[in-house]
Amino acid sequence: MNYVELLGYAAAFCTTVAFFPQAIKIYKTKHTKDISLGMFLLLTAGVVLWLIYGIIIDSSPIIAANTVTLILDLYILYTKIKLDRFQ
Amino acid sequence: MNYVELLGYAAAFCTTVAFFPQAIKIYKTKHTKDISLGMFLLLTAGVVLWLIYGIIIDSSPIIAANTVTLILDLYILYTKIKLDRFQ
Repeated sequence: MNYVELLGYAAAFCTTVAFFPQAIKIYKTKHTKDISLGMFLLLTAGVVLWLIYGIIIDSSPIIAANTVTLILDLYILYTKIKLDRFQ
Repeated sequence: MNYVELLGYAAAFCTTVAFFPQAIKIYKTKHTKDISLGMFLLLTAGVVLWLIYGIIIDSSPIIAANTVTLILDLYILYTKIKLDRFQ
C-alpha cells in the first residue's frame, strides 16, 4: 500500500468513525433535539447509494466504510424520530 | 457519463448536502448541546484528509464535495465550540 492509498484509508476511517461519538452521546443522554432530521435522512439516502455504488464497482473499502456508517446513521435516525415525539 | 458514475455522483451529492439542514438548524436555533463535538472534530480531520487525497489523485468530484462539506462542517464546529460555553 503506498502513501496515497494510506491517506485515502485514513480519510475513510475518520469520516466513518466520526459517527460513533454522536451515537454514544445520544445513547447516553437520550437527547436529539438539536440534531437535524434532514441531515440524517439525506445522509441515509447518500450512504445507501454509496453502498450500491461500492457493490457495483466491487470496492471493499467503500462497502466496509458505508456499512459501518449506515448502522450508526440508522441508530441516530431511529432514536431521533422516536425521541422527537417527546421533546 | 454512465449510470454507475451517475450513482456515485448522486451518492456524493446526498452525503455532501446532508450538512446543509444541520448548519441551517444551528443558525436558526443557536442550539448545539445535543451535537457531538467528537463527531465534528473527527469529521473535520477526515474531510481535510479526503481533500488532500483528492488533490493528490487529481479528482475534481472528491475535491468539490469535500470543499463544500468542509465549509459546512467548520461552521457547525465553530458554532458548537462558541455556544458550548453558554449552554
